[in-house]
Amino acid sequence: MTIPAGLPASVVVRDVGPRDGLQPEAPIAAEDRALLVDALIAAGVHRIEVAAFVSPKAVPAMAGAADVVAAVPPRPGLVRAALVPNRRGAEDAVAAGIDEVTVTISASEAYNQRNVKMSTAESETEIAGIVALTRDRGTPVDAVISCAFGSPYEGDIAPDEVVALADRLTHAGVTTVTFADTTGMATPRRIDDLVDALAGDTDGVGLHLHDTRGLALANAYAALERGITRFDTSVGGLGGSPFAHGAGGNLATEALVALCDDLGVATGIDLEALIGVAALLGDLVGRDVPSAIAHHGPPRPVRP
Amino acid sequence: MTIPAGLPASVVVRDVGPRDGLQPEAPIAAEDRALLVDALIAAGVHRIEVAAFVSPKAVPAMAGAADVVAAVPPRPGLVRAALVPNRRGAEDAVAAGIDEVTVTISASEAYNQRNVKMSTAESETEIAGIVALTRDRGTPVDAVISCAFGSPYEGDIAPDEVVALADRLTHAGVTTVTFADTTGMATPRRIDDLVDALAGDTDGVGLHLHDTRGLALANAYAALERGITRFDTSVGGLGGSPFAHGAGGNLATEALVALCDDLGVATGIDLEALIGVAALLGDLVGRDVPSAIAHHGPPRPVRP
Repeated sequence: MTIPAGLPASVVVRDVGPRDGLQPEAPIAAEDRALLVDALIAAGVHRIEVAAFVSPKAVPAMAGAADVVAAVPPRPGLVRAALVPNRRGAEDAVAAGIDEVTVTISASEAYNQRNVKMSTAESETEIAGIVALTRDRGTPVDAVISCAFGSPYEGDIAPDEVVALADRLTHAGVTTVTFADTTGMATPRRIDDLVDALAGDTDGVGLHLHDTRGLALANAYAALERGITRFDTSVGGLGGSPFAHGAGGNLATEALVALCDDLGVATGIDLEALIGVAALLGDLVGRDVPSAIAHHGPPRPVRP
Repeated sequence: MTIPAGLPASVVVRDVGPRDGLQPEAPIAAEDRALLVDALIAAGVHRIEVAAFVSPKAVPAMAGAADVVAAVPPRPGLVRAALVPNRRGAEDAVAAGIDEVTVTISASEAYNQRNVKMSTAESETEIAGIVALTRDRGTPVDAVISCAFGSPYEGDIAPDEVVALADRLTHAGVTTVTFADTTGMATPRRIDDLVDALAGDTDGVGLHLHDTRGLALANAYAALERGITRFDTSVGGLGGSPFAHGAGGNLATEALVALCDDLGVATGIDLEALIGVAALLGDLVGRDVPSAIAHHGPPRPVRP
């Protein structure tokens, strides 16, 4: 086979299922969410967004964040990430002993206003405050830039503007940046454009893809070819923002792992075990998960 | 943007929706299937598998093939294809005035037996007979090789074996060959392997992709990068063989067109009009079609 020149030897997968996947669902007990996290760890997923330290009134499904974290002890090589919307959430997350804080800001002014009721400038200030809070503990901060491939409200957003925001956030002290396709507008061409705007410097850059329009896996493949080595995915393909009309599920972790397995790109994740986790998740949410790989298995011939 | 070196300027799309898409559905009147074909033509699709000349007892949904063909008159630039399982079907198709005959043979001996109750050697003989029948009329024959990326019964099938079969078929007089991923086992790596086995000679080669495992669009993207310029797709993403357990829908025409539009690869098809055809098809089959692009529109920012 011809491995395209740009394919990386390995990628880092952050499963955001316990957070982004479960956020729009009916609330599930913290102990069950911890079981989901444990099952992911057992399948070889070592970077997991386990919780969001948000108001349980605003997002009931994320109540009990500290309980989830407490139920999943730290261990070498494991990164338990948590989303925080503001300094107060960051304080709670750090107090809970989280290993990585994720913050969000939108490349779209209108989306940012609707999502967090702040201007993007205010969000940048808030993120700088979060960085100041976490710096002493040495907790890394990943900034997730939503609508990085277009906004449902404002249309196209120039990749240079998105990268300029990423640069300001890095300057403000965030450790890494993840570009999120919140409403499924990314395409292989837009992935290319972003990497071009990054001048090819994909070191540490993450992608957070949604499958709204069925393009997520093609986008991931294009991203692998352009040297992207970090991905947010969601076991079972659950997910979607309640604030983005038409936002579909996240790229399923098992879809990315199946693609990478077949390409010889290491993920460290056991696909069969992961498909078992998707089944467990289906039991937790009370319905089949959307992921096709979870239903039909890996793209390997079946010997009867 | 960086257009990968191998991306073609244009592709030929053959919509197999009126045949492969509707074959597993409850029967729809021939006149309604002809309306679907007309709508596809109006959207700019100029190569369409409009019917199958098979026993209506075996496949009730394909009854009235000659009526569909008669309702869609020939016109310059339009290719009305029909599937034929044997010489008798080819005679009927030619008598109906079809522009292209498609024949199938499986790279998998076991699948061929189950699908058409013949050995692959017998199918090769049958195809040679069909070629002899159509030669006088100058009707081109496209041979669709099913299970070209693996068999649900026999596991992996070496790309060299698949290409050897394609070569024998070409030697027997078929005009073109289409490699079909009948049960969703293709991956970008297996696409690569096939193109390698073809020694990069993708001239006239077609791909017929199914989305069983959600990989179809990533496979199409990989194929575009390797220079494949002909694709079978199905409006709305309907389809699937009743004989292949777990076979999912075909790659949706609108998914491929959306991808190509965004990459600047010409298809000649109007995506908005095509999404309208998918809605018409949903009315005909009485449920939403599976295609995500049909539901959420093109991956273009929406201006409110």
